[in-house]
Amino acid sequence: MDANSYQRLSMTLEEMAEHDRVYGTLAQRTRELIDAGLHTAVDHAEIEEVTATLEQLIARLTKESDPANLGVKIGPDGSVRNHGNAVVGFRNPFAPPLDVETTDQGTAYAAFHLGAAYEGPPDLVHGGVSALILDQMLGEAAAAGRAPGMTGRLHLTYRRPTPLGDLRAKAWIERVDGHKTTVRGHIAGPDGEPTVEAEGLFILPRWAREAMAAKERGHAFE
Amino acid sequence: MDANSYQRLSMTLEEMAEHDRVYGTLAQRTRELIDAGLHTAVDHAEIEEVTATLEQLIARLTKESDPANLGVKIGPDGSVRNHGNAVVGFRNPFAPPLDVETTDQGTAYAAFHLGAAYEGPPDLVHGGVSALILDQMLGEAAAAGRAPGMTGRLHLTYRRPTPLGDLRAKAWIERVDGHKTTVRGHIAGPDGEPTVEAEGLFILPRWAREAMAAKERGHAFE
Repeated sequence: MDANSYQRLSMTLEEMAEHDRVYGTLAQRTRELIDAGLHTAVDHAEIEEVTATLEQLIARLTKESDPANLGVKIGPDGSVRNHGNAVVGFRNPFAPPLDVETTDQGTAYAAFHLGAAYEGPPDLVHGGVSALILDQMLGEAAAAGRAPGMTGRLHLTYRRPTPLGDLRAKAWIERVDGHKTTVRGHIAGPDGEPTVEAEGLFILPRWAREAMAAKERGHAFE
Repeated sequence: MDANSYQRLSMTLEEMAEHDRVYGTLAQRTRELIDAGLHTAVDHAEIEEVTATLEQLIARLTKESDPANLGVKIGPDGSVRNHGNAVVGFRNPFAPPLDVETTDQGTAYAAFHLGAAYEGPPDLVHGGVSALILDQMLGEAAAAGRAPGMTGRLHLTYRRPTPLGDLRAKAWIERVDGHKTTVRGHIAGPDGEPTVEAEGLFILPRWAREAMAAKERGHAFE
């Protein structure tokens, strides 16, 4: 909610760039592995050898581990690092990840590709995956319009099936009532027609409102 | 919707069991790799070596590929194989996967664990991941009660934060009105208190209703 409540990383910009390159490439290869596993047609013996090598790689990565989840950190340049986020986190292979463009007026836009990992009905995006993406998009629009919040409610209307493949999503603030923000958005397929529409209410929790008010009064909050 | 509309696999029960063991283990190791990558604290050189080996494994798996998505198939025993499903598919590393218990009365129950890959706010389940899981749970309850359908609308109410870790979800049919089924459900944390509540409307498309009616009249539909 409030960047000041997150831990600021003590690394240089160069160290941060190198860190992100190394971890980002690992996550991207892991995404490719997920897709390869869902489409592979090599013989069982080959799959079992690949699986055995994977076990070795897991052992190498878990030799030293940080049990903490990635959460949200602040970079040395003040950038918000939510790199583990299930939709936009580039370090999270679960995330496509979405690259969301926002405006100060509280709009959010993303073009993205959903492959076999996001399937529900045959060749279609899982209805819940559309909900996942729209929840993030609506929250991004609210935050971009300086009316951030946690999801209070989310209403989804499924107009037509969403095909796997290249998709777009957009979201925009409809109304701000104090600490409650109403946001709308949709996902569209290649023909541009909305397939799933969403309306969400985002609510800024009291602790975050108090922290922001104190900040405006000139107090430091960490 | 209708099992007869899906392709029946031509393999023996033994071949199917072996196939599922080989592919299921690959998917499970891939899930562990995702988690390992989100928690690893080994040095950059080691991560880069692991990443380079991953590239080799991807090349081995993609040497022969089937471009088709997994979709839904029917096993030689008549079992429904939606193994690529983004929530319950054991072959899909994106899926936790949920092991859903259902009853003929249209209830669904699942206990499951969500780790770092499902994070939104720090240490909390992404609000959209809760929506993803509830969409599947409500659909499972509808299908178990012989009132299946595609999601028409889904309303989510976020009561309190959902912590990453061990969770439970349940869903139950509230009402069946012809080809429209209203289902409710929720996710609960370790204390048993619902964190996210859902109400969904599931609608059986006309093509599926016609296929089922024809089947009842004794026609074969493939």
